[in-house]
This record gives sequence, C-alpha cells and structure tokens, in this order.
Amino acid sequence: MTGEKANEDAPGVAAPTPGTRRPGGRTARTRAAVRDAVLAGLSEHGYPGLTVEYVAEHSGVHKTTLYRRWKDVEGLVVDALDLAGEDSWLPPDTGSLEGDLHALAQEVVTSFTDPAVAASGSAMIAAGFQSERAAEALRAYYAERFARCEPLVERALQRGELPAPATGGVDAGALVRAVSAPLFFRLFITREPVDDALAGQAVAAALAAARAGVFTTVGTAGT
Amino acid sequence: MTGEKANEDAPGVAAPTPGTRRPGGRTARTRAAVRDAVLAGLSEHGYPGLTVEYVAEHSGVHKTTLYRRWKDVEGLVVDALDLAGEDSWLPPDTGSLEGDLHALAQEVVTSFTDPAVAASGSAMIAAGFQSERAAEALRAYYAERFARCEPLVERALQRGELPAPATGGVDAGALVRAVSAPLFFRLFITREPVDDALAGQAVAAALAAARAGVFTTVGTAGT
Repeated sequence: MTGEKANEDAPGVAAPTPGTRRPGGRTARTRAAVRDAVLAGLSEHGYPGLTVEYVAEHSGVHKTTLYRRWKDVEGLVVDALDLAGEDSWLPPDTGSLEGDLHALAQEVVTSFTDPAVAASGSAMIAAGFQSERAAEALRAYYAERFARCEPLVERALQRGELPAPATGGVDAGALVRAVSAPLFFRLFITREPVDDALAGQAVAAALAAARAGVFTTVGTAGT
Repeated sequence: MTGEKANEDAPGVAAPTPGTRRPGGRTARTRAAVRDAVLAGLSEHGYPGLTVEYVAEHSGVHKTTLYRRWKDVEGLVVDALDLAGEDSWLPPDTGSLEGDLHALAQEVVTSFTDPAVAASGSAMIAAGFQSERAAEALRAYYAERFARCEPLVERALQRGELPAPATGGVDAGALVRAVSAPLFFRLFITREPVDDALAGQAVAAALAAARAGVFTTVGTAGT
C-alpha cells in the first residue's frame, strides 16, 4: 500500500493516515481500506484502467457495498481525494520563511521522485483530465492544502521577513503556489526531471518576487 | 478542426500550419490530415478513447496505411506532437523584456481558455500520463519551444534590462518556464481558473526573480 507512506507528503497529492481526524470506527476503516485499494489501482492501471472489481478485490469490501456507497469509479477516486484532504498535515515551521519554503519544495521533490508515492499522486492528477468530478476534488484538495500554508506567511510577516504591503495583504496562496508551480510544471507538463537544485531555484524565485511585493491581493498584481 | 487555430499558440501544445517548414508534398499533406484527425479525436475522446479507426475515418487515410506508418495510437499521438514542434513559431519581440513575457503569458491564457484549442492541448498533456513515448515527445516539444525563447533573453541582456551575472549566464529556459509554470500549474494540477491578472502576476514574479539574479546556470541556483 502506498497510502501510508504518502501521508508525509504535502502539496503533492497525498494520502493520510486513516482516522487522523475522524474517530476510527468501522466506517472509517472501510473508507480507508477502499482508499488504499483505489490508490493501488491508480498506481497500477491509471484512471482509465481502474475498475470497481479491482477495488473490491483489493479492499475486501463487497462490490455491492462499493456500488451503493461510492456509485462508480469516479466516486471512488473523488472520495480518495476527499479523504486525502482530511489529514492533519500542517506546513513546515522551521523558524524562517526561506526554511519553510525549502521544506515545502523538498516535500514535492521527495514525494514525486519516490516511485511508490509518485504513482498514485500522478494518477490522481491524471484523473483530473478525464473526470470533471475528479478535477473538482483536486481543486478542493489543493485549495485546502494551500490555505493551511497561510500561517507560514503570517509568521514571516511578523518576523519582518517580508515587507507589509502599503494596501491589502500578502497573497499567501500565490506565494506558496509559486514555490510548487515550477516543480509540478516540469514533472507533469514539460516532463523534465526535478531535483534539489531546481527546488532551491523555485524557492529563491518565489522569495525574490515576494520581497518585490508581487504577491499582493489578486487584481492589483502584475500592474 | 482545431489544428489551424492552435497554430498561433506557443508554449501551449499547439498544432502548426501544415507544411510551414517542409515542402507540402503528398506525404506532408497526409501527415497533416492524420495530425488533424488525431487532435480532433483527442479533443473528443481523450487519449484513452482514441482509436486508429477514428483517425482513419476522420483523416480519409486508410487504416492499413496508418498501421504501417504510425503503428498504433501511441505512434499517432507522438507524431502529432513531433509535427507540432516543426512549426515556425518564434517568441514575441515587442521591444522590451516585460512586453515579451506578457505576450508569452497571454498566449498560454488565450490558448487554454479557448475551449476548441484547449481540448487538444489538454489531451496531449494528458497523454503524457498514460504513455511514456507521449511523455518523451512532450519533453522534446517543450525543450524546443523554450530553446526558441533564448533570443528573447539575449535581447533583454543587450538592452540592459537584466543584470549580467558575474559568472555564467542567464538561464533563459528557467526564466521563460517561470512565466508559464504558475499558469499551467493552475490549469492542470490545482484546476483553478487563470486570467490576465494571473498572467501579469506570473510575469512580475519571473521578472523580479530574474532581476535578483535567480535564473543563472542551473547548479548554482538557489544556493
């Protein structure tokens, strides 16, 4: 199961430890077992090859239960993503903005260069191309992920590591997305390798832009 | 056919006007017709649903010819990408680095917010998740695309719009990728909308990083 390992990976699509937030009743255990089977199936066959039969076989949950609760493959994938978003992940707190952003970038590089973890994360992102409901679930997952990074930027402002904008505030979401974007772009669009040097460059670029005041509230940016 | 329109779009996955570089013999015309059918099929059904039968029907090229020359669906998609990379696209030359980067960002936003063009480009990127050969073709396509942007950065250096690094050179590829990355990241990973304001922010961020000397030769970056 790749589900356990993926728990530590952040703005990558990650799977949480079952029950980190919810009490671990039988329903929660079933849901986690199904999620693990979905991730394994996505890793093995990708979204187009995933079947309810596969999930039944690998989760030990009966097919009729799967159809009743999740309806179809799309429902299974969406719920796996929803569950991934219910973990207790928090952004790194290293004592400096640069350190925090480095740790974030490192999490992306680590999760997507570990083949076992990368396969299910990559298949989740791929599902977004084939299913509008999966795309919506991805949108919600990442929105939540990046919203959790707001305290990271708040701390940086308190430490005086970023200039406070004259009007409006710092767009924390835009800043942390700027760190992840060059890595995901190469991993999944231009299909180029990513490494620590590139993670460092992404951090340095995002920091330079933040210090220049680029990431203020959207609408005033880039003018 | 979405193939014609896509011609003007740059770091998006775009289709060229048939024969812009090669003399337009019968072979080139066949290849372009097949490419148009592949793009139409990808737009309509996505990579998992594309069949040689569909391409035969929509290109007017016999199935046996398709099998002989392109072997399979993967070969058809790879050749469509190869052909897209053989166009005569050049980066914008507006007279300023900022203007050039704005025009580049605008091309990405325009191509992927026009549903007709977006569908085939998006399906090409999706194919990279399912086919290693499509991923390789995407890598080659974008490598070539961004290599063509080098003169854009060269001109900026000549105009003194960027500081010349003490050692090494400006990594033009990293700079232009930095403009595209936040847009593609939102379009295909976090599934968020992109607009002109975001394009402006991407340009401003890349410029601030470039002026701070972040995009020097890889390996020294981010240290």
